[in-house]
Amino acid sequence: MQPFSDRLIAAIRSKDCRCVVGLDPRVDQMPRFVRTGSDYAAITAFHELVIEAVADLVPAVKPQLAFFEQYGVAGMQAFENTVLAAKQRGLLVIADGKRNDISSTAEAYANAYLGGEVFDCDAMTVTPYMGRDSLMPFVEACKKHGKGMFAVLKTSNEGSKDFEDQPLAATGRPLYEKIAGALNELGAGLVGAMGYSSIGAVIGATFPEEGRRLRALMPKALILVPGYGTQGGSAQAAAECFNEDGLGAIVNSSRGITYAFGDPDISRDAFVRSVRENTQRMIEEMNSAVNRANQQTPLRSPALPLA
Amino acid sequence: MQPFSDRLIAAIRSKDCRCVVGLDPRVDQMPRFVRTGSDYAAITAFHELVIEAVADLVPAVKPQLAFFEQYGVAGMQAFENTVLAAKQRGLLVIADGKRNDISSTAEAYANAYLGGEVFDCDAMTVTPYMGRDSLMPFVEACKKHGKGMFAVLKTSNEGSKDFEDQPLAATGRPLYEKIAGALNELGAGLVGAMGYSSIGAVIGATFPEEGRRLRALMPKALILVPGYGTQGGSAQAAAECFNEDGLGAIVNSSRGITYAFGDPDISRDAFVRSVRENTQRMIEEMNSAVNRANQQTPLRSPALPLA
Repeated sequence: MQPFSDRLIAAIRSKDCRCVVGLDPRVDQMPRFVRTGSDYAAITAFHELVIEAVADLVPAVKPQLAFFEQYGVAGMQAFENTVLAAKQRGLLVIADGKRNDISSTAEAYANAYLGGEVFDCDAMTVTPYMGRDSLMPFVEACKKHGKGMFAVLKTSNEGSKDFEDQPLAATGRPLYEKIAGALNELGAGLVGAMGYSSIGAVIGATFPEEGRRLRALMPKALILVPGYGTQGGSAQAAAECFNEDGLGAIVNSSRGITYAFGDPDISRDAFVRSVRENTQRMIEEMNSAVNRANQQTPLRSPALPLA
Repeated sequence: MQPFSDRLIAAIRSKDCRCVVGLDPRVDQMPRFVRTGSDYAAITAFHELVIEAVADLVPAVKPQLAFFEQYGVAGMQAFENTVLAAKQRGLLVIADGKRNDISSTAEAYANAYLGGEVFDCDAMTVTPYMGRDSLMPFVEACKKHGKGMFAVLKTSNEGSKDFEDQPLAATGRPLYEKIAGALNELGAGLVGAMGYSSIGAVIGATFPEEGRRLRALMPKALILVPGYGTQGGSAQAAAECFNEDGLGAIVNSSRGITYAFGDPDISRDAFVRSVRENTQRMIEEMNSAVNRANQQTPLRSPALPLA
């Protein structure tokens, strides 16, 4: 299989879209028309509908595992269904589970989500705290199966200052910059034909300065940017995570796209329209913000026309 | 429900056992007699047998989620079965999933494993990297439902030096000590009648000096100690994570107990005997090591007689 980074960049270019739709099952907030049976049925049907609505607009979806696990075994079955539905529609799937562990346990997680045989996702998010060797099984799975990994660097929450931001004695620089350096090294062997590595990072849209700095420190990393919309990050802030070529990042929105329909008694057609319109609005906002950022920065050239 | 810390300490005392049995499904390494049907059936039957074999010996089991997830939805169903089987036999269940995220996503993980309604575990492991507010939903679930949480501090792998050990500019001390301080504060309101908090830490048995130091820094924290046996940690090293009262930690062994039976054609009875003997040997080794540590340290009094 082609490297994940090439598959993602190709999809971003062909759809002229730098956004990803987050899939967070919250059954009690779903439209009533979808809640006619079990939670399992509701989650599956809701996501099939969202996926159908956005398949021609975005390169990828990002199911958040925590929300599926909250529904137990049935939730995990709905996760499997959601992954399959997305792949059938040609969307890439980023499993957001923030997994990690050491040694054979990390291998088990990599097998589960990147091995292509269990939950057949294209990329997953991981936590880096346990060190480089804890990340290696994921890096190896990415290399072997053409998959991708996004390691959490600087999250969008206020508490990200507690440990992520801690200046280190050795450098005076934040911990997350040291981890960024390690990711650069781990990802060096996985740079695809389009110039990006399949070993990426998660950087919240709520911290534009940190985003700008990390973007410069990791020029070839794909950056997954959460925190846009509901969590307070603006398109302008998220744009800091992009390179001069107008590429290198994807910005996620979950609730702002799938749960912003208002009336729980909304019809199926109106719901699909709401999801499409919210997605299109975000795509345009991000494209404008990335273009603006490139025009305002003298060192940057305008974004390449995509597609 | 009683606080997790009190329930765990009571079980440790009544069984005079400071060990926990790790449950890592590796179907291809299971005895042949259990591998007659699906992976799902093998995992469920294997763990029912292990749980039956150790129920009178140990206070708790620690299923490792990664290995269940590796078997997909069926693996998660086997996880649910395993949790139920352990609880029916009166064992506490520590879900080892190293989960975390921010905000409502962290809440979803806490609901899934500590809420008492989905996967009904007694405690879970989490990663601390994303900061104090990322840990709060778990702390709140522990308080509300009488559950426990173990945050990863210093893991047993070589790579734990990469980020966990980084000296901070502010103190010159390792990052994990700063996180230990935060855990102390988060756990202060959850100290039970037996003097221990339900907010604990994971510290690998392969780093006895770090264990000793962290034990002193977090006198009321329950410490979950992996890395004994297969990963190279000795009973003596693991003993550093205990207090003068001979309590305050539980030491995990997984493969050394459940997969050390040798012949894949072993009979059911011989397998049960192997699991029991391996468990009893570890219990005795740990009790001796903890007693020895207390006798050798002038400041320490001998371990209280338990039970």
